[in-house]
Amino acid sequence: MKHQFTKKGSFFFPLNQFLSRYISAFDWLLNYQSKHLVGDITAGIIVTSLLIPQSMAYALLAGLPPKIGLYASLLPPIIYPLLGTSRVLAVGPVAVDSLMVAAAIAQFAPQDTPRYLSLALTLAFLVGIIEIGMGVLRLGFLVNFLSRSVISGFISGAAVIIAFSQVKHLFGLKIPATESFFELLALIVNKLPQTNIMTLALGVGSVGILFYFNNPLIKQLKRLHWSDQNILPISKSAPLLVVILGTLLVWAFQLDKIAEIKIVGEIPAGLPSFTLPLLDLQTLQSLLPAALAISLVGYMEGFAGGQALASKRREKINANQELVGFGAANIGAAFTGGYPVTGGLSRSVVNYAAGANTGLASIITGLLIAVTVMFLTSLFYFLPQTCLAAIIITAVYKLIDFATLKRMWVYDKADAIAWLATFATVLVLGVEKGIILGAAIALGLHLWRTSKPHIAIVGRLGDSEHFRNELRYPVQTSPQVLAVRVDESLYFANAKYLENFLTQAIADRLEVTTILLVCSAVNAIDASALEILEALVADLKSLKIEFYLCEVKGPVMDKLNKIGFVDYLGEDHIFLTTDQAMRTLAGI
Amino acid sequence: MKHQFTKKGSFFFPLNQFLSRYISAFDWLLNYQSKHLVGDITAGIIVTSLLIPQSMAYALLAGLPPKIGLYASLLPPIIYPLLGTSRVLAVGPVAVDSLMVAAAIAQFAPQDTPRYLSLALTLAFLVGIIEIGMGVLRLGFLVNFLSRSVISGFISGAAVIIAFSQVKHLFGLKIPATESFFELLALIVNKLPQTNIMTLALGVGSVGILFYFNNPLIKQLKRLHWSDQNILPISKSAPLLVVILGTLLVWAFQLDKIAEIKIVGEIPAGLPSFTLPLLDLQTLQSLLPAALAISLVGYMEGFAGGQALASKRREKINANQELVGFGAANIGAAFTGGYPVTGGLSRSVVNYAAGANTGLASIITGLLIAVTVMFLTSLFYFLPQTCLAAIIITAVYKLIDFATLKRMWVYDKADAIAWLATFATVLVLGVEKGIILGAAIALGLHLWRTSKPHIAIVGRLGDSEHFRNELRYPVQTSPQVLAVRVDESLYFANAKYLENFLTQAIADRLEVTTILLVCSAVNAIDASALEILEALVADLKSLKIEFYLCEVKGPVMDKLNKIGFVDYLGEDHIFLTTDQAMRTLAGI
Repeated sequence: MKHQFTKKGSFFFPLNQFLSRYISAFDWLLNYQSKHLVGDITAGIIVTSLLIPQSMAYALLAGLPPKIGLYASLLPPIIYPLLGTSRVLAVGPVAVDSLMVAAAIAQFAPQDTPRYLSLALTLAFLVGIIEIGMGVLRLGFLVNFLSRSVISGFISGAAVIIAFSQVKHLFGLKIPATESFFELLALIVNKLPQTNIMTLALGVGSVGILFYFNNPLIKQLKRLHWSDQNILPISKSAPLLVVILGTLLVWAFQLDKIAEIKIVGEIPAGLPSFTLPLLDLQTLQSLLPAALAISLVGYMEGFAGGQALASKRREKINANQELVGFGAANIGAAFTGGYPVTGGLSRSVVNYAAGANTGLASIITGLLIAVTVMFLTSLFYFLPQTCLAAIIITAVYKLIDFATLKRMWVYDKADAIAWLATFATVLVLGVEKGIILGAAIALGLHLWRTSKPHIAIVGRLGDSEHFRNELRYPVQTSPQVLAVRVDESLYFANAKYLENFLTQAIADRLEVTTILLVCSAVNAIDASALEILEALVADLKSLKIEFYLCEVKGPVMDKLNKIGFVDYLGEDHIFLTTDQAMRTLAGI
Repeated sequence: MKHQFTKKGSFFFPLNQFLSRYISAFDWLLNYQSKHLVGDITAGIIVTSLLIPQSMAYALLAGLPPKIGLYASLLPPIIYPLLGTSRVLAVGPVAVDSLMVAAAIAQFAPQDTPRYLSLALTLAFLVGIIEIGMGVLRLGFLVNFLSRSVISGFISGAAVIIAFSQVKHLFGLKIPATESFFELLALIVNKLPQTNIMTLALGVGSVGILFYFNNPLIKQLKRLHWSDQNILPISKSAPLLVVILGTLLVWAFQLDKIAEIKIVGEIPAGLPSFTLPLLDLQTLQSLLPAALAISLVGYMEGFAGGQALASKRREKINANQELVGFGAANIGAAFTGGYPVTGGLSRSVVNYAAGANTGLASIITGLLIAVTVMFLTSLFYFLPQTCLAAIIITAVYKLIDFATLKRMWVYDKADAIAWLATFATVLVLGVEKGIILGAAIALGLHLWRTSKPHIAIVGRLGDSEHFRNELRYPVQTSPQVLAVRVDESLYFANAKYLENFLTQAIADRLEVTTILLVCSAVNAIDASALEILEALVADLKSLKIEFYLCEVKGPVMDKLNKIGFVDYLGEDHIFLTTDQAMRTLAGI
């Protein structure tokens, strides 16, 4: 009895099941194995050292004070692993989301005002609600409708905007926030003479260090036969190094006063106070479109990262449960003065490579950030903003992905066009409209392509049972029996095309008395296509042309049977194979 | 030399070609055969007798005076056959377009004002420009993206609105024009006590005659062994009969004065004066959305009619040239005081059945309408509006197509849902939004369906070379070699789904060391899907799982070769058939 109650009892068992399904921590935390501890602690520390400079930099990108980046890195890494299904995803501020936050709020409040901060955390709250809602409604599949071309074009466009938005910090220029990329370019060119040389030197030096650590150093260490495990923490410590060097330089030579280098300034020590989102209807309504876009993009980025790493470990990830995890993390950010977060690919890769085994690594990161904001914020007082700009530029530089465009141009022009259209739309109309229009363009191109399927008139290849395109192979055809193979499922957008093809073909070949439709590539026939087929059969009948089918797939045949099309056509008008059909109908 | 110049000369030949391609009349008018004359004249007369009452009725539906219907039936039937490619299409006012005109203009001008008339003909002008533009840009294929479910749901919804919009004329109620269907319903119920009994009697009597001629009479005549050719003109003369009877009754008993029956009243005799569309930018801009919707719907209806009849005659129809024909007809309507027109299916069927052989029949119709407006308008003075309402109601009643909905429900739930969604949207949000949202819903459902393709793990059926779904057949599989068949082309919206399926499958079956993807149903692989496949292969490699393909189609193989995927995978990892692959890999 006892056994039954604890493991299969009517009460406990469903609860257990429920918990392990919806509270991911129930699985990994209760079954925690001590052998995983060292890896988790190491990874937690390394990710923290990367997260501190990155989160402050991304907050600047979002038009927020650097401390908001730290606040957004506190609760989210603790909450996510409790609910999300990835074991190694590092959740926190990311570049593209930060840019979208800046674009969304800029129109409603000026930067450096309390309202701007409130709107940022309200946005996090909305994103959280939307993501949890999508997860509960099991809408995780929606992200599949963003094609790779759109994602790559979108991220490349966003990266270009992000990089140029940092130029002002790198050059020490005073440029007001602007939504338009081309306006920003004009302003930069205009103000270039006012460059602060010391700021620029510090920035360019930082960029140099970051690039050196990113590639040449790795190669050198490899030549010295260092292991990847040892190279990784060193190469990934570059941002921390830049932050430390920059801070020391400014502090030692009082560059903030002498050279007017902009510094981060005072960050109040201590945990963020509890914050509430703005819940008036008008604010929520005006932020809703941006929140939807950020939810979608954030989820897309986080899920892609989590999935990439899970498949390396032969683990499963649950799309809808991920949405719940991200959503809860965002709500956590909203109540602790943060702004929208998601799983970042680059930090997650570091987490994974540094040995993270379970969500504990992420929780350790969150706790270390808490320690940082409680005791270490004074260390960042002299941190120059140009160093943070350098960190952003080198981070997003890798996201500009012309290689994908080039490959797509070779492989598939339609995909390349979708890439270019999305990229251009992001630059011209902004990030939100870019992702929506890009998705629409990709879907349109896909539909356009499937609306004009490949259709071949086929004939027998030699004496074989193979039937091939008469335009490609020397095949044997019959002038009376037209065997036509259509290489696409039949649905409303292409059924007319097939009908046109057939009516044109019989108008061109007046000797045709029989049409045989080879359905080997037809995976489905929808109601529109069926109706068009029926009308076609009737029209052909009045012209004394017989219509036959062959190689109809099982599920398609089931449906045709159910609606009575098989009876309508006559069972003897459907052949199993093209071979049998052509033997019987054409005698060839 | 002479021969060469007239038939193949460098100057004349291209001109000839150009003319016969773009000026359809060049073909049929210059080669006119006298044997066609009798049929053309007969058909022209019969269609005119149907068109006169219908055009006046549809004008009322559009909120226009009845004469505008006649004006719109004058030039369009003369212009269309010169440019359009159908030989038997009857162009003029139609029900759904008329309803859309009413909905479009109601918001900008009150009925019975000169501005309302001007806006109607401006709309015709815009529709003409848009249709010609679409034809020149070869955008005729766009109409294929409206699925049958959307078209049927849309027309059914529009027919319900049209029928109820005529109730006020049938009952003699005074109800202001309203855009909302449910507001209209409420108004009708509200005003029902004010019904004009004589008007209702006349209307119901007309409906009775029309229904009798439409079905019971045809059956009776068939029982008397009349030929279809003789039955048709009689059954189709019902609207004319109703008009004549109604007019005589009102005239004889002065019902317009005694019983306050609303009559058509004076129509100025003579051809319409030359009219100009309103060309100020603001007017054009505000009418543009409606003009786009009317162009699309009008083209859809006209093209469907023309195509249905052309296929009965084994003739070809050119989608883009049809657009030019409709566009020119609309511009003709715009300059002669008309409103938007298109090819009407029911009148075209009459035209065809009455013996029309060439476009001359349509031209004769136009000329007879000209004679009518010049000399016969006084005959319509006493024509009661309730008779016209009866004509509209019986005409659109047939368009309410619940039979299609029922069939779709049996055959394919997704199509039925699209039907219902379009129908409901038309009623709730109006005709324009209805067609757009309906199209979006149908496309969404199609994409959603193809995003979750049928995937089967297959095994060998007995000793044969056939491989079938292990869930459906008792097949022989290998625990190490997972043979997976996906029944859909791979593109961005479903490649992730396949990837998930495979990663879940190998997470569930830890003994799997080899995956074989059977591509017999894969007609294309887009760039996103390719990238996902590549990542999958890499991930599998790191898990020491080998990935193989088989039954890859020619065009797909060409592209995989071009981008280097074949080399990446290894040529020995692609088998011709599943049989060969399973023999080699699994030894079964």
